[in-house]
Amino acid sequence: MDDMLYLMNSLWVMLSAILVIFMAAGFIMLEAGSTRMKNAGHIAGKTVFTFGLACLVFWAVGFAFIFGDNANFFIGLSNFFYSGYELEDMNLSSPVFFLFQMAFAGIAVTIALGGFAERAKLSVYVLFTILFSALVYPVVAHWIWGGGWLAEHGKQDFAGSTVVHLTGAMAALAATILLKPRIGRFNKDGSANAIHGHNQVFTSLGVLILWFGWFGFNAGSTLSVDGGFFGYVALNTNLAAGAAAVSALIISWVVLGKSDIPTILNGALAGLVSITASCAFVDTWAAVVIGLIAGVLVFYSARLIEKMGIDDPIFALSVHGIPGIWGTLSTGFFATPELATVGRPGLFYGGGFTQLGVQAMGVFVSGAFAFAASFIILFAIKKALGGLRVSEEEEIMGLDMSEHGSYGYPEVFADHTNQTISGEK
Amino acid sequence: MDDMLYLMNSLWVMLSAILVIFMAAGFIMLEAGSTRMKNAGHIAGKTVFTFGLACLVFWAVGFAFIFGDNANFFIGLSNFFYSGYELEDMNLSSPVFFLFQMAFAGIAVTIALGGFAERAKLSVYVLFTILFSALVYPVVAHWIWGGGWLAEHGKQDFAGSTVVHLTGAMAALAATILLKPRIGRFNKDGSANAIHGHNQVFTSLGVLILWFGWFGFNAGSTLSVDGGFFGYVALNTNLAAGAAAVSALIISWVVLGKSDIPTILNGALAGLVSITASCAFVDTWAAVVIGLIAGVLVFYSARLIEKMGIDDPIFALSVHGIPGIWGTLSTGFFATPELATVGRPGLFYGGGFTQLGVQAMGVFVSGAFAFAASFIILFAIKKALGGLRVSEEEEIMGLDMSEHGSYGYPEVFADHTNQTISGEK
Amino acid sequence: MDDMLYLMNSLWVMLSAILVIFMAAGFIMLEAGSTRMKNAGHIAGKTVFTFGLACLVFWAVGFAFIFGDNANFFIGLSNFFYSGYELEDMNLSSPVFFLFQMAFAGIAVTIALGGFAERAKLSVYVLFTILFSALVYPVVAHWIWGGGWLAEHGKQDFAGSTVVHLTGAMAALAATILLKPRIGRFNKDGSANAIHGHNQVFTSLGVLILWFGWFGFNAGSTLSVDGGFFGYVALNTNLAAGAAAVSALIISWVVLGKSDIPTILNGALAGLVSITASCAFVDTWAAVVIGLIAGVLVFYSARLIEKMGIDDPIFALSVHGIPGIWGTLSTGFFATPELATVGRPGLFYGGGFTQLGVQAMGVFVSGAFAFAASFIILFAIKKALGGLRVSEEEEIMGLDMSEHGSYGYPEVFADHTNQTISGEK
Repeated sequence: MDDMLYLMNSLWVMLSAILVIFMAAGFIMLEAGSTRMKNAGHIAGKTVFTFGLACLVFWAVGFAFIFGDNANFFIGLSNFFYSGYELEDMNLSSPVFFLFQMAFAGIAVTIALGGFAERAKLSVYVLFTILFSALVYPVVAHWIWGGGWLAEHGKQDFAGSTVVHLTGAMAALAATILLKPRIGRFNKDGSANAIHGHNQVFTSLGVLILWFGWFGFNAGSTLSVDGGFFGYVALNTNLAAGAAAVSALIISWVVLGKSDIPTILNGALAGLVSITASCAFVDTWAAVVIGLIAGVLVFYSARLIEKMGIDDPIFALSVHGIPGIWGTLSTGFFATPELATVGRPGLFYGGGFTQLGVQAMGVFVSGAFAFAASFIILFAIKKALGGLRVSEEEEIMGLDMSEHGSYGYPEVFADHTNQTISGEK
Repeated sequence: MDDMLYLMNSLWVMLSAILVIFMAAGFIMLEAGSTRMKNAGHIAGKTVFTFGLACLVFWAVGFAFIFGDNANFFIGLSNFFYSGYELEDMNLSSPVFFLFQMAFAGIAVTIALGGFAERAKLSVYVLFTILFSALVYPVVAHWIWGGGWLAEHGKQDFAGSTVVHLTGAMAALAATILLKPRIGRFNKDGSANAIHGHNQVFTSLGVLILWFGWFGFNAGSTLSVDGGFFGYVALNTNLAAGAAAVSALIISWVVLGKSDIPTILNGALAGLVSITASCAFVDTWAAVVIGLIAGVLVFYSARLIEKMGIDDPIFALSVHGIPGIWGTLSTGFFATPELATVGRPGLFYGGGFTQLGVQAMGVFVSGAFAFAASFIILFAIKKALGGLRVSEEEEIMGLDMSEHGSYGYPEVFADHTNQTISGEK
Repeated sequence: MDDMLYLMNSLWVMLSAILVIFMAAGFIMLEAGSTRMKNAGHIAGKTVFTFGLACLVFWAVGFAFIFGDNANFFIGLSNFFYSGYELEDMNLSSPVFFLFQMAFAGIAVTIALGGFAERAKLSVYVLFTILFSALVYPVVAHWIWGGGWLAEHGKQDFAGSTVVHLTGAMAALAATILLKPRIGRFNKDGSANAIHGHNQVFTSLGVLILWFGWFGFNAGSTLSVDGGFFGYVALNTNLAAGAAAVSALIISWVVLGKSDIPTILNGALAGLVSITASCAFVDTWAAVVIGLIAGVLVFYSARLIEKMGIDDPIFALSVHGIPGIWGTLSTGFFATPELATVGRPGLFYGGGFTQLGVQAMGVFVSGAFAFAASFIILFAIKKALGGLRVSEEEEIMGLDMSEHGSYGYPEVFADHTNQTISGEK
């Protein structure tokens, strides 16, 4: 019986890990669709190697820092270069658990790199991926999931609204501040210009791939098939995503007179980010409410961020940052007595402000650490490389050409290349 | 042992539900690829919020109407705003079953909206999604799957050739009749012009995503891992899809001299739609035959529909309608004595015309209801909104711009927009 | 207990089969992205029907040839037109096993057809798909997986570096030699011109879909959930893919000064191909090393193949061929005593040259057979059809138009078509 549970847990988390890894494909489409044609090959292709690189770093040191046996309050320190042995206190196959966590680390860095889009050098992507995966993500993950000090305070973050999404978004914020806005994003008087993504079909597909993968992300975080509870988590996840897409549709329609597609798509993602912390702790109606609020938040936060003169090219801040905060706090409001893991229900269920306070502290400390650490790392990279950003000329030409030597759409930019192949224009 | 079966059933249906939800991505690519560039962002993005909206409506009322405890012959009436409790007589986690059914409801409306393509107002999408998800789909689903009167007559529709595909297609038919054909689709003398979809790669990807998701749709409809029977269902599904792609290739090659890609792609889908009713009831050779016939049907039905002056923009009628009927009837021909759930084998296995008659009645009544109810709903929406369709000027400009204020491919339509971003042409 | 294992094995392999079938979508995107716009609809759409056709052939005869009961050293001869009955000695549902194997056969032919790209007639695709699926792939698969003579020698090929990837690549080599290079690929002095693929976003998405599906391919080849070992196999798979993407990034950066996207993407795939043979037999560090070497190999082998005047349009040889060989041999170097199935560890673990010799023989014989058989088949098709290749005029016009009568991107090639639809340019 125990053996069967062990195998079934392994099977469920295995499939969840595969779904989370596929989220990298979602980010490829989301990011490529949200940026311009001249950068499309670069944006899409870099996700493949940064994801791969993050996996290697996680294998070498990241897992050890998060889940290492002799953990202290800051990081753990064992299980480097994991070779597949069974870990302690696991009720599932250890390599499966490892793969699942590896996928999360890969997704976290992918979110962070959203802030670099359309202007950072390729070498910056490589160096930041290594350092973020080794030194930033594992620290926050250890604090909350690895038995660190926030876990001891009872911080609830079921699948990573804080650990993955807020951490990634804060790194993206540090990057976009240091990189400065893309050419043409803001005028001298501070007013903003839209830089439209080139392909909303790509973006839509990206959102659906992410939605699909998110069932592994959230429901897989049960790490167990016990009681079939993953179904409840998945149901909440789906409801929040749907609700947020709808509220984003409505708010943008009401405010702008026309409902724009990027807002709707970002709404769905914001719902998913928000429910990530609380999906296992709240009632279904609360999941709908959390989603509805997320859809409104993503609309206003994108506008506020633009007004502040911050260039958030693929909405890392408004989709992963603000909803990541909202999602973490929402647990403090809506966690039910039956479902809250630490036994502290949320404010609306008579739990008072205790859990809400822990959640807020967790958001603040984790966010501040992720921002500061990423800022310092990027500052050091800037010094080491003599700059984070490609030249103005290269940026105008596009990073496909400047960083990789050929366009992602060579037939569209045919006159810029030296191709002289007969049979083609 | 029972517990393990419960968990394993939950796990299997959970993963199937995830696959069915991913079919929304398939429809995004299929529909975007099958329509024109000026509508691509709209087509892709609307699927995200209509799917989300359908999920909310299903949660609020749809599930209650289909599976409610105090069911009458028309609809059920309990379990509104489902909160995750265990339902009766389930051998799997109830939230999992709920999510699986929710995904089906979302797919049904997505099929229906195919008939609206390239000319309906955004507000029509919103209103019809709500009303179809509340009042049309649940009624048919209750009749056949919720213990309603067609179920009592022994109607066999394993995974929804009738419930999902025919219902969706009949709604699409009502819509396309009321909306009238797209500008330029037919000439004054009644002759037709092709309006080619803009991206066959998108369409091909959409077909493969749907093929992939269909294993959840069909094999997941076992709702159980019992005896590993899902494998047989999946095998039949795959055989029918492959056979139909091949027969569509051949028939279009023979008749037209060149085999066109949309026919091949629609063939594969028609095979999947056809086998949906019968996948659990027929022999593997019959699955091949059902598929081969479906591939031929999709080719001729698309031609016939065009000849009738009906504009079926993304083949909702020829892919989901006619093959939905064929699939439902095929059970009456090919169901084997061993596999037929109600103990009535098909005509070719000595069962006589009884089951075929039930199947035909089910198709007729369900189709007629779905058409009539959708027609009435759309007629009411038309009166309420003063029309279903965007203006001629807006249709020519494209719905990306008219309904959302920016193109899905802004760099392609750059001269139509007000963008003045330096660094771009 | 046994029953539960049977069901769980069935469930795991079922989901793996679904993942492998989805790899067809990966190839659609990979191949479409790696070729030119004028051929995109053809390239994408043909994968749908060739995959379907390969499934039918596998059902009719392929499975019988591989796994037939009365197997001889060359092929098996039973279980034609499989009807779903239970096979002997299976610890999982037989239709599930059948579906899993069917998916592999479909992928093998898809790889082979990569060598035909952008110039072969549609009829050649149809005929070669039938003959390869009936006569080439089953023979190699029988030798290694069906209890044939290479299996008796202890050839280790866990998930098919040789059986699927090398076999497919050798067929692609035969095809590309007989078809000759595409117009403009090489100059009269033997120097080469690049023919860039038209969409690196498509290619990137294709790689991630394949990466995703590969977990079914490799980890699913355990055919069992026993001990949760699939997790270890999946971990090795992921590490090799990541390592190869990184090493391909670095080697192309160092050698060319700029790291091109296709090399990075091919690197990830080469890592996956390489680890396919050895994923269940080697340590995690060895998986990283195997991947790192694969990323370098793919870069140099693509250059070498071009220098040899061979046109390898979508890198079938450099991605599936050379890494397929390397992966098979790598087992002979790195297989550990604990994991090697036949009890023969690799050279680096004190096993001497025995296993390495068997692996080399397996590669050589399988590769030679696949090449020779494919060459003979294509030569016969050439005689029968009066040529394998479309006319020069058709090739310049593009196969979308020549083979299917309309462009995959009709709005891009609008002036080449007869469309006169109002509402469009």
